[in-house]
Amino acid sequence: MKRIALDMDGVLADVYNHFIKMHFEETGESLTIEALEGKTELEAFPHIRKHVNSTGFFRDLKLIPGCQQYVEQLNQQYELFIVSAATEFPLSLSEKQIWLNKYFPFLTWRQMVFCGSKEIIRADIMIDDHFKNLDYFPGETILFTQPHNKFADAGRHRRVTHWEEVGQILL
Amino acid sequence: MKRIALDMDGVLADVYNHFIKMHFEETGESLTIEALEGKTELEAFPHIRKHVNSTGFFRDLKLIPGCQQYVEQLNQQYELFIVSAATEFPLSLSEKQIWLNKYFPFLTWRQMVFCGSKEIIRADIMIDDHFKNLDYFPGETILFTQPHNKFADAGRHRRVTHWEEVGQILL
Repeated sequence: MKRIALDMDGVLADVYNHFIKMHFEETGESLTIEALEGKTELEAFPHIRKHVNSTGFFRDLKLIPGCQQYVEQLNQQYELFIVSAATEFPLSLSEKQIWLNKYFPFLTWRQMVFCGSKEIIRADIMIDDHFKNLDYFPGETILFTQPHNKFADAGRHRRVTHWEEVGQILL
Repeated sequence: MKRIALDMDGVLADVYNHFIKMHFEETGESLTIEALEGKTELEAFPHIRKHVNSTGFFRDLKLIPGCQQYVEQLNQQYELFIVSAATEFPLSLSEKQIWLNKYFPFLTWRQMVFCGSKEIIRADIMIDDHFKNLDYFPGETILFTQPHNKFADAGRHRRVTHWEEVGQILL
């Protein structure tokens, strides 16, 4: 059974719309997803570090559309691990686990990895929205489109823009 | 540079003496390390799940003697990751990070992994006190002696009883 390392933020959890909401609350400025395409997350949201270090940020994120049903199916056909960069933001550790338990109750604690660098991950397939994670991974790589990577050359990574495409490739 | 996956509980953090203290506070019974040798942790401490789920348990652990100086040296000569089973005990996540930051301030968030199963770990060397982690690891394995594994046949794993021995092997 092949092992998948599946990212959270930007793949399961919709961080962009939450950043946009927090940006509006803080500045009164309404941003659109389209206006943020091609910018890094830090370029798009100058206060991003304050946002991700606030209590509740990771607990309150909404789902990326469609991901629940596909994750449930992947979980039946693969050895699935959720691998999330979390140790940079200490508050995120418990909030991420609470969030996973809420939206993916079929996953167990054995399948959750909260780390810093993902270079230590051993799996066959990695699904992630960040090149810094995919580029060091020796297996099959799927780049999940998010505004920050939208115009970048995917290189050796296979780009998907919706969960339906993940399903078409892996199920 | 070779990569080491280094366990916390029973290798860096002295869980046994803390369990003995909590057992005494709860029952009035004084246990000795010697009396616990050869027993599983659950056999040794029937209330272990209550202990590890109490606030402060992982934050208040003392160090296994000598580990700080050797970890600092390993950190200079290897790509070092601390890999700790933590997601089974949700309170432990933030407490373990606080504990690592306190006793090993030279380690960064990039080097910390809080997981469930360690089968997903890719490294060259694993140092751990549990066969359930070492047995699935394809690289070099070092079994750190703790009361629960003291009389077990180490098998393919190299057994060490003190941090000095880890230093002799790896430094």
